[in-house]
Amino acid sequence: MSKIKIAVDAMGGDFAPLNDVSGAIIAAEEKQNELEIFLVGKENLINEEILKHKVSLKNITVINADETVTMKDSPTESLRSKPNSSISVGLDLVKQRKADAFISAGNTGAVMTASILKLGRIKGVGRPTIGSLFPTDQGRTMVFDVGASVDCKAVHLLEFAIMGSIYMKYVHGIEKPSIGLLSVGEEKSKGDILTIEAHELLEKSGLNFIGNVEGRDVLRGKADIIVCDGFTGNVILKFAESVLDVMKSKFKAYSEKGFFHKLWVGVMYGTLKNVVLKDFDYQEYGGVPLLGVDGVSIIGHGKSSPIAIKNMIYKAEDMVRSGVNEKIRQELNKDGN
Amino acid sequence: MSKIKIAVDAMGGDFAPLNDVSGAIIAAEEKQNELEIFLVGKENLINEEILKHKVSLKNITVINADETVTMKDSPTESLRSKPNSSISVGLDLVKQRKADAFISAGNTGAVMTASILKLGRIKGVGRPTIGSLFPTDQGRTMVFDVGASVDCKAVHLLEFAIMGSIYMKYVHGIEKPSIGLLSVGEEKSKGDILTIEAHELLEKSGLNFIGNVEGRDVLRGKADIIVCDGFTGNVILKFAESVLDVMKSKFKAYSEKGFFHKLWVGVMYGTLKNVVLKDFDYQEYGGVPLLGVDGVSIIGHGKSSPIAIKNMIYKAEDMVRSGVNEKIRQELNKDGN
Repeated sequence: MSKIKIAVDAMGGDFAPLNDVSGAIIAAEEKQNELEIFLVGKENLINEEILKHKVSLKNITVINADETVTMKDSPTESLRSKPNSSISVGLDLVKQRKADAFISAGNTGAVMTASILKLGRIKGVGRPTIGSLFPTDQGRTMVFDVGASVDCKAVHLLEFAIMGSIYMKYVHGIEKPSIGLLSVGEEKSKGDILTIEAHELLEKSGLNFIGNVEGRDVLRGKADIIVCDGFTGNVILKFAESVLDVMKSKFKAYSEKGFFHKLWVGVMYGTLKNVVLKDFDYQEYGGVPLLGVDGVSIIGHGKSSPIAIKNMIYKAEDMVRSGVNEKIRQELNKDGN
Repeated sequence: MSKIKIAVDAMGGDFAPLNDVSGAIIAAEEKQNELEIFLVGKENLINEEILKHKVSLKNITVINADETVTMKDSPTESLRSKPNSSISVGLDLVKQRKADAFISAGNTGAVMTASILKLGRIKGVGRPTIGSLFPTDQGRTMVFDVGASVDCKAVHLLEFAIMGSIYMKYVHGIEKPSIGLLSVGEEKSKGDILTIEAHELLEKSGLNFIGNVEGRDVLRGKADIIVCDGFTGNVILKFAESVLDVMKSKFKAYSEKGFFHKLWVGVMYGTLKNVVLKDFDYQEYGGVPLLGVDGVSIIGHGKSSPIAIKNMIYKAEDMVRSGVNEKIRQELNKDGN
C-alpha cells in the first residue's frame, strides 16, 4: 500500500499546536506504513511540542509556515495578508500534489475560502459544499451544505446530494444513502422556489431521494443525507450547537443556587451526559469534508481534541484512498454535462 | 370600555372542542365586561361541551359551522372544499366586522392561508408574517417570519421588522425592541444576497437595529426580535421543537432499561423539567400573531391547553385594543410608500 501524504495545520484550533501535534503523532505512530504526515506551522513551536512526546517517527516532517491565521481573522483578508500562514502553506502542498490532503482545526471560514481559491473546483461542480453530522435516534444524518455556498440554485442542491452520496458511500460505508430535501412541508409542492425546483431535479436524479423533510426531521434520522442551501444549513448548525451551551449554562446557574443544588447537579450530570448531552456535543465528531474542491480538505472544530485530529487525518486518508474526488468528477461529468 | 368581539375556532386543535370551549369559558368569565366571545363550530358539540361547565354566560354566543378542517387537510384545498369550516366562518365574521379578531388552535397552514386570502393584506404590506417566541437566557426572542412568507425580498424582511416592532411594543410592552437580522456571520458583509441587502435597509430604517445575529444567538437573547425569511424561520422553529421531543425520547429509552433506570429518571425529571425542559416546551407560549393581514388572527399550537386558548383570546384583545394593525398601516404608508 502506498503511503498517503497528509498536511496537518499545526497552528489550527484553540489548543494549537498542542492538540494538532499530539493527534498527528498518534496517527503517525498507529499507521507508520500507511501515512506520511507534514506538520505545517511555526517550526520551533512544533519541534518543541514533538520533543515532549519523546518519540522518533520517520513519517513526520515539519514544514515551516511563519504566519498564523487566528479565529478572529477575516477569511478573505487573511488569505491576502498572511500568504505564509499554515493554512496557505498546507494547501499549497496539496495544490502542488506534494500532499494528498490537508486537515485543519483552524478558522473554518479561512480554511474553506483558502481551499476553494487555492485548490479550485472539480470540473462539473458549480458550488462546493461542507457537510456536518447531526446526531439522530438511529445514528447520524449529514447535512449539506452548512455554509460553503449560501446562495444556491436548484442544481447546486442536486450537486450536494450527488457529492454527499459518494462521500457517505465511500467514507461512511452506506451503500445507497437516503437523501432528504430540507423544506417547510413534506409535500412536493411545499417549499420556496429553490426547494420546489430542487425537488424536481432530485426526483429525476436516480439517487435514493426520499422527498422533503422538515426541520423537525433533522434529529430524527429520516435520511442519511439532508440537503439545503448553505445559509439555512449554517443557521441550523449554529442553533444546534447553541442548544448544548444553553443547557449547560442553565445547569450551571441552577447549581450556583447553593450547595445542595450543586451536589444534585453533580449527581445527575453523569447520566445526563450519557443520555442526552453527549449526542448534542458537536465537538465529538471530528472534521467535516469540504466537497467539490479539487483536493482533499477536512475542516475540524476549533476545540478538536488530539483524538479528533487523529480522526480527521484518518478521514482524509479514507477520502484519498477511496478516490471520492475522482468519483465526484466522473458523476458530475456524465452525459457530457 | 367597549367590548371586544372575538371569534374562537371551537374545532381547532387536538383537543377540540374540549380545550377551545373551556378556554373560551374561562376568558368569558374573567372578562364579562370586556369580551364578547363567538364559539364557532359544530353547534351540538359545542353546546354539549358548554353544558358540562354548568355556567351561564351572556357574553358567549355559539355560531354554527358544519365543517371542520383537520390537521391533515391541505391548507389551500380545505379553503375551497370546506367553505363552511369553523375557520372560514370565523374569519368571515372578522371580514364582515362582526368580530374584531379570530383565534384558532387548528391547522396552522389552513388558518394562515385562509386569514391571508379572506382578510387580505393591510395596505403597504408586501408579505404577511407569523412570529414565534423562542426562550432565551434573558426571557424571550420573537422570530419573524416562521412560515407565512417563504420567498422574501429584502424589503419584506424590513416589513417584518417594522410590524414586529409595533407588535412587541404594544402587546409585549417593549418600548424600542432591538432587532437582529439572522445571517451566517456578524459582519455586515456576511450573508446571502437577501440578508446583505436587508442589512442595508434595516440600517437606514430608524428601527433599533443591532446588526446581524447567527443561529447560535437565537436562544441567547441577543435581540428582542430576529428577522429572517419564512423558510429559514420555519426550519429553525421545527428543529427547536424537535429538540425537546428527542430529549424526552432519549430519557424514555434510558428509563426502559430497567427498574432502577426508571426510578432514577423519575427522580431527576422534576429538576430537569424546571431547569431546562420547560423553556424548550414551545407549547407553553400560546398563540402567535399573523401580522400584516387586515384583521386580527392569532394561531395557536394544536396541543393548546384551555389556558393557552384563554391567553390567545387575551392576546387578540390586546392587539385589537392597542390598534396594532392601524399602527402598522400608518407606519408602512409613511412617505407616500
